[in-house]
Formats: sequence, C-alpha cells, structure tokens
Amino acid sequence: MLGLMQDRPLTLPHIFHRAEQYFGHKELITATPAGTTETTTIADWAVRVRRLATVLDTLGISPDGRVGTFCWNSARHLELYLAVPCTGRVLHTLNLRLFPDQLVYVANHAGDEVVFVERSLLGLFWPHVDRLETVRHIVVVDDGAGPEIPDDPRVSDYEQLLAAASPVTGRFTVDDENSAAAMCYTSGTTGNPKGVVYSHRSTLLHSLATLFADGVGLRERDVVLPVVPMFHANAWGLPYGCLLAGSSLVLPGPGMTPDAILALVAEHRVTLAAGVPTIWMGLLPKLGEYDVSSLRAILCGGSAVPRSLSEGFREATGLPLLQGWGMTETSPLAALGVLRAAHDELSEDERADVRALQGPAVPLVELRIADPDTGEEQPWDGTSTGEVQAAGPWIAREYYRGEGDGGQFTDDGWLRTGDVAVVDRLGYVKLVDRTKDLVKSGGEWISSVELENEIMAHPKVAEAAVIAVPHEKWVERPLACVVVKDGEQLTADELIDFLAPRVAKWWLPDAVEFIDEVPKTSVGKFSKKTLRDKFGGYILPS
Amino acid sequence: MLGLMQDRPLTLPHIFHRAEQYFGHKELITATPAGTTETTTIADWAVRVRRLATVLDTLGISPDGRVGTFCWNSARHLELYLAVPCTGRVLHTLNLRLFPDQLVYVANHAGDEVVFVERSLLGLFWPHVDRLETVRHIVVVDDGAGPEIPDDPRVSDYEQLLAAASPVTGRFTVDDENSAAAMCYTSGTTGNPKGVVYSHRSTLLHSLATLFADGVGLRERDVVLPVVPMFHANAWGLPYGCLLAGSSLVLPGPGMTPDAILALVAEHRVTLAAGVPTIWMGLLPKLGEYDVSSLRAILCGGSAVPRSLSEGFREATGLPLLQGWGMTETSPLAALGVLRAAHDELSEDERADVRALQGPAVPLVELRIADPDTGEEQPWDGTSTGEVQAAGPWIAREYYRGEGDGGQFTDDGWLRTGDVAVVDRLGYVKLVDRTKDLVKSGGEWISSVELENEIMAHPKVAEAAVIAVPHEKWVERPLACVVVKDGEQLTADELIDFLAPRVAKWWLPDAVEFIDEVPKTSVGKFSKKTLRDKFGGYILPS
Repeated sequence: MLGLMQDRPLTLPHIFHRAEQYFGHKELITATPAGTTETTTIADWAVRVRRLATVLDTLGISPDGRVGTFCWNSARHLELYLAVPCTGRVLHTLNLRLFPDQLVYVANHAGDEVVFVERSLLGLFWPHVDRLETVRHIVVVDDGAGPEIPDDPRVSDYEQLLAAASPVTGRFTVDDENSAAAMCYTSGTTGNPKGVVYSHRSTLLHSLATLFADGVGLRERDVVLPVVPMFHANAWGLPYGCLLAGSSLVLPGPGMTPDAILALVAEHRVTLAAGVPTIWMGLLPKLGEYDVSSLRAILCGGSAVPRSLSEGFREATGLPLLQGWGMTETSPLAALGVLRAAHDELSEDERADVRALQGPAVPLVELRIADPDTGEEQPWDGTSTGEVQAAGPWIAREYYRGEGDGGQFTDDGWLRTGDVAVVDRLGYVKLVDRTKDLVKSGGEWISSVELENEIMAHPKVAEAAVIAVPHEKWVERPLACVVVKDGEQLTADELIDFLAPRVAKWWLPDAVEFIDEVPKTSVGKFSKKTLRDKFGGYILPS
Repeated sequence: MLGLMQDRPLTLPHIFHRAEQYFGHKELITATPAGTTETTTIADWAVRVRRLATVLDTLGISPDGRVGTFCWNSARHLELYLAVPCTGRVLHTLNLRLFPDQLVYVANHAGDEVVFVERSLLGLFWPHVDRLETVRHIVVVDDGAGPEIPDDPRVSDYEQLLAAASPVTGRFTVDDENSAAAMCYTSGTTGNPKGVVYSHRSTLLHSLATLFADGVGLRERDVVLPVVPMFHANAWGLPYGCLLAGSSLVLPGPGMTPDAILALVAEHRVTLAAGVPTIWMGLLPKLGEYDVSSLRAILCGGSAVPRSLSEGFREATGLPLLQGWGMTETSPLAALGVLRAAHDELSEDERADVRALQGPAVPLVELRIADPDTGEEQPWDGTSTGEVQAAGPWIAREYYRGEGDGGQFTDDGWLRTGDVAVVDRLGYVKLVDRTKDLVKSGGEWISSVELENEIMAHPKVAEAAVIAVPHEKWVERPLACVVVKDGEQLTADELIDFLAPRVAKWWLPDAVEFIDEVPKTSVGKFSKKTLRDKFGGYILPS
C-alpha cells in the first residue's frame, strides 16, 4: 500500500524560490580583493540568477553539462551555485589549491564545458587553459583585481553576458531528484582525485541538516560567515542552508587573513562563522583586538579540532568551537560535537574533553566502526577501535566514472571513510587516526592524532604531526615532527618530559624533528604523505 | 546525469534505530488515568517495540495491514507508532472523539485488521465492536483503569502478548519510502471523514521539520509535553521528532485538565508543550499556581490563535504562544509564526500582531493564495485575499480510496485547504476565514475569524463564533454567538459598543446571541455547521 502524498521532488529550485519569495530583503555581502565590501540583496541576486540561467542556454551548455567554477566565496559564486543546478546542469567547483596537473585532470575528467573564473584568479588558471580538452568557454567574473582579460575567442565577460540576457521567468523545475546537482573531487593523498557527484536530493537533505537546532541551527536572524571555501564540499552546505533559512551571508572573497576575517565579524555582526582549525589557530591571538561579541557559534571541521584550540576560544570569547566531522564523500556534514543534557553535569574540563570528540551522527546519517581488515562491526564501548563507515542519503556510493578500486565502499554499500575511531556509549565518535596513519608498534596501535593533540597542548608548540617510521624490533615507532611557535625555544627532551605524564610510556615518540611548517594538502589538511616522503629511510636513535 | 549518492530510503526505521542507538538513557513519562506517572527509558521501550513487531506477525496481520489504535498519549501508544510502520504495516490512529457512526465508518473504510484499545477507553469502544467488519483482533492495552476486559475470542491482552513474544533482532527495513506508514481521517464538517495516507518519506521529512531552529527546534535537552493527541495528525509530528532529536517525552494520558497539565510541566521541567487554543485558554488563569519556568516554547495550533490568548501567556510567563498552522492533509505542519530579525524593530504591541499571524511556510512546503472561484493566484500584498493552497512532500495529493469530489485538489496537484487568507510581503499568512464561513455582505467579504477575535478580546467573553445568516438586502449578515465568562454579565449593546471602534461599521454583527458553549468538532474546533443548523432560519432584527 502506497502513501498518498504529493510527489514533490527534493530539488534545489525549492531553495532558490524560497529565498526569492521570503528573503528578498536580506543581504549578501562579499569582500573583494581590493579590501572593500559589496552588498546586494537576495532580490537583486535572484534576478541575476535568472539572467545567468539564460546565459547558460546562450552559451549552449548541454542540458546536463558540467559547469566549472574557479572562484572565491562571493555572491557571484552563489549565483552559479543556484543557476547551474536549477537549470539541470552540474556545478563543478574547482579547488583553487589543486596542483596544475590535478586541476587539468579534474576539469578534463568531469568534462567541464565552461569554467567561470574570477579575474583575480586568472593568473593561476590561464597558464593551463590549453590543456583543458572539453572547455569551450571561459567566463571571467570580474572581482575588481587581477590581470587584463585575455583576448581569446573562448573568453567572455560575466557582467556583459548577464546584461545581455533576459531573466528566465516562472519557476525552475528539475523533475528527477536523483539527478546530479554538483560535483567535487576529493584531494586524495594517493592516486588521482576522484569525483563525488551530489544529487539534488542529497544536497537538499544535507541543507536541511544545517537547520537542526541541535547542531548548526541556521536561523533567519543569523549572519553567517563561511570561511570554509565554496570551492570545496559545498562550503559545508552553508550557502544552501542560509538561503533556505534566510540567514544573511558574509562571503570573505580571497581575504583569509586573521585581520580580514575578524574585521568582517566585527563590522557585520556575524553570528556564525565556519572554517578549518588552521583558520581559527590564526585568529586566536588576535581575538582581543576586535569586537566578536555577535558570534553565537564557531563551526570547525576538516581536521580533528585540538582541544587546546577550542578551549582557547572558550577562554577568550566564552564560545568553544563546535566541531563538525565529515569529508567530500559525506557532503560533508556527518557528525557534530554538540553536547547533550547529560554533559551539563560534567566539569568544564570534562566538557572540553567531550567537545574534542567528533560527536554523534546527525539525523539521517548512520555511522558504525568496523575492523579495517575483517570488516567485523565493533561495539560502542569507548575502547574498541575500528574504521568509521557511513551510510545515509547524502553519503557517496561510488566515484564518478567508476574511479577508485572499489575498496572505498563495503559490500553492503557503506562508505569506508579511512578514519579510525572509538565510539562511546552515547555514540560520540573519537577519531584516533587515519587507517593508513596509525602507528603499529609491537602489534598494538598508537594513535598519531592523539599523540599530536598532546604535543600541540604544549604552550610552545604551534603545530605537530606524528608519522610512523620503521623499527627493527617494534615494526613501527612514532616520529614527532614539531613546529615551534615564533620566538620560542624547545628541545626534544623538554617535549618528552611534557608528554610523559600524559600518554602511555610506549606511546612516547622515539624521536622529535623540529620543522618549519607541517606540509598541507590542497584543502589545508596535514599532508603526512609529504612528511613520510621527507623522512623516508629515517634512522631512529637506538 | 545522475548523482552517485547512496540510495537510502527515507523511512521510519531510521527514527527507531537512531533513538535506540543514541538515546537509550532518555526518559518516557506517561500519566495514567489513576493520576500517577509511569517512567520508562527509550532502551526498555525499544525492546518492547521489538516484541510488538513479533506480536503483529503472530496475530497474522497482513504485510501492509492497517492497525488501528484507540489510545491516549502514552508510551504504549508510542510503541505502536514505531512497531507498526517499521514492520511495513499502516498505523491508523482512531480519533477518540469521533461519533460512533464515524468511528465504525473509518475503521471499516480503512479495513483495520486489529485495534489496540486502552482499557480506560473500552466503554467508548466496545459497544460498536460488532459493527467493525474487518477487525479480527482487539488488543486491550491496560492503562490501569476502565471496565473488566470482555471475555471474547477476539480479545487479547497487550502485556501478555508482549511477554510471550521474542524481540525482533537486527534492523527493521522498509524498502520503498513511498509506502504507507500511517493514516488519519479528517473530521470533515460535511460528508464522511476522508482518509489521509502518510508515507514513510512524508513522515520522516515532516519529522525533520520539527528540528529546524527557526520553529519548533526540538533538541536532545528538551522535555516535550504533547497535549495535542497522538490519535490525530500524528500529534503534530512531535512523537517522531522527539525520538529523532532525543528529547524526553511527557505523555499526558487522559489527563487534559489544566491542573493535570500544569502539574506535569512543573514536575518534569517541561521545556516545550503543544496543544490547541482551548487547552491554553483553560490553563491561562491557573499559570500563577505552578512553576512553569522551565518552558521555552508553547506551540499552539489547530485553530487560529487569538492574539489576546498569546498576549495573556506573554504577560504571565514571558512566553507568547508559538502559532503553527496546518491540517490533517498537511501532516500537519505547514506554517509557523516565528518572528524575523526585521520584527525586532517593532514595538511589543506590533510584535503581538505578527504572532497572531499564521506565519510563513516551513522549509519544503510551498503556499500560495488563489481566488477560490477562478483559481487565479493572488499577490502577497497584505490585502488581496484568496484560498490558501499548499504543495510539498508531506502534503496530501488525494484521499484514501479516492474519496472526496476531487475539488480538494487543483489541476496542478496542490491541496486546496479551504482556508481564506491574506499574505503580507514577508510571506506571513493571515487567515481570515474558511471559504465556507466567510460572510458575504453586499458583495464584500467579512471575515468571521477576525470578528470572532475582536469579540473574544472583550474581557467578559469566554469564546465566540460568528456565522452568516441570510439577509434580504445584503444577501448575508453576521450573527455573533457569544459565551460569557462564568459570573459575568454582558449585553448585546455593550458588546457592539466595544466592537464599534475596532472594526469597520459594516462588519458590526446585526445580532448577538448568548449561548452556553460554542459547539466543537471531534478535534476541538468550533463547529460552525452545528451553529448554522441551530440558527437555521434565524430572523435578524430589522
């Protein structure tokens, strides 16, 4: 027996029309490369989205053609976020931080027909344009900075195209909610990047998750600053979520310095900001110089959030960081470190421990941990470790064009995240490592992530990464790669003395190397692969 | 091009397993007919749900059989809420307040195979049992009160069945998210009740809507008291929403007196309570006698919320009522009267006016107003009136077994709600009447609802209903049917004098009739049909 409810597809036109109908008076603010801000309203933005829909037709983009973007967080990028999927095309956000070969690879692999490039990024993009095999048009989005626009038949100007186009009238429709809306490539540390293809259904459902009160809880009265880039994993769903909720958006453009971000928070009375730990590490020492009293939440994800960082924010502003966990394959919001009523009874210090966890799955997502070798599911007892596996309507089931060796998905269709965790009885995930970063010492696992957190708790340490190096007796032993804060001095012995009371004796690193910076991937995560290459053949002191 | 996301159906087993996995320690509290409360945990409740799943098999209920319930709000009713749809059957909540003929009609129309009846309700149910054509089993749910259990081969005892059944192990699965999960009959004021059939998808999506921060915003730390009955329109989605969010539930059983409800709020530190205006009218005078400081929101719907009632609550507790709007056909949550940032600039008095509106559509629901005769869509200008029409994934597209004349749905598949409204530029719906309750005076419409609100603002008026009566010159004119508060005296002239500065002159009722009570429908709404029958042939004073 079937239900007798309306067969309304879950598609992105709902978000566009809701924003246009209800929130036309709300503001979209974009910081420009010149250091100024541009303010528009949703009403004006919506007319531009409707013009852009016509432009995509005029350019002859296929009905389900891939549309590349090479843009910062900006109101214009948000125009593309809606016009592309609302006309049935597929938004392909290109990661600005990809290495040139990867950039060329993903644009060709996706089959992008057009790329919209912000002018300030032309210098990064244009040298590779002749290697793009499927791109017929380059549309330059003039953000007021950057080189002269190349005189090339493929190139056109965004504003001129919009001005010449009539706005599409009526309502956008996408009939099949399972059709592709957007795609994003994972910055795999091995092999070529792999494409994750989001559907309208998955994107709309994921957007709803940003509205849940126990979590991000976007509201109409919020002013949201996504520092997390719109060119990666849909900026954690915040652009779509804000349009659904009616929140104002402050889009930081290329200005990712602590001062630029803090000035936006202060000037626009931002209530919710979101970014990776590195961003907040940079801001922490400067918090006192700006009025950040408008903030109600600071969302942090992309890497495990160091307890000391969250506590630093709590001490400075009263607001600890709200930790989110996920990845490109999970849209990305999969778990959120919200506190439960039961945590009210804990001390402030114990609550900080809970906030350092990745938290329980958000509604509609399911998580489990399983032995990475046997696949056997592990109990949620706070001690058993296993690989985190994820299921849900916004979790990937395969990569674009069948890439990957299939080992990323289980036989029953769950995503193997590659993260190793323990889960406590309340369902809080605690990441202990990546499956490939675990240090296997004498048959026991050492969590490199946990060790890093303890090292980073040292007041003189700026950042640290732990990698496994071969050991004759124990197979592997940990090597700590440590960046000391500017102007500070630290010795390996001092660090080991600091760690001794904090971790099991056999977890203590066998060696400490002081480095200038922990190398990062294109999305700002620690690149342990680079460190392992650098320290290949490392000889531990005996 | 299709998205490559997991094909995970949106079904109710997700709610069950999430509650079981994450919220086992949370409490379910039920008030019994004896005036005591029973407390259980989600963990124990979940085992009982698993046993109940076995019981449904043992009773031989068809794979998609309809399972009737005739129960108050209780933890046992919540067991049925999950076990029935999670095993593929269809939960059919029978409205305790139906007239016997209607009760028999809907059970037969739905084809209920079994009815679970709380013992305290047997006196209401049993006399009609021999007229139920498809019911093979009556399971008595012993709530500790009521008559002896009849010695009849169709009858069994709920606790005995559960005790004899093994809990189903593993995970419940429902493959098709569009399959029916539950059904509920509308208490149509004309004709037979009509069945609305909710799907798993519609019910799960609707449950998500109770989590949105701009709205009900259910959180794990909430303690929720649904006074609104679980036997009608899924108690506004709160039972499912609370299980998803992990909120504690306080289920009031049959105790609907103001003192019983207030005592539950005070004792269990309820944070959110939900019910129809009549309930809150009864509570208002007693608020001072109980500690209600734990409340963060009071949800009110089912009928337009009188401004004076909401203001009464705000003055007494600081908390105005949060108005929801919807109907059985809309699952029911369609609009919510949340305030926007722009309303912060208004005076308290102006904000009270906004709270008296039904508010904007919740995400995923679309609303429009259209001329009831021509179907032409009307602008959102704050003055144009039209019938409210609704679309969305939890809005009905037809009635069970094709009932109704088809006039309840538009050609493009939207629900015609029968409510007449104006919508302002921010998208706030203001109900002015039911299409069939409008008073058409001299070619102009008079809103009976608005007139009633003004009459009920008189301090001596308990409640009031306005109906149209025939008039030789003006075709129709309003008649006010007024209930005076206990111990007060009021004349028609006094009332008209009170109204004169408040409404247009031509809106003033031509006559006032003082009555003992406004007749109510089975769901507690004003039954204007009964009043029109009562005052059929009424002669207005000339």
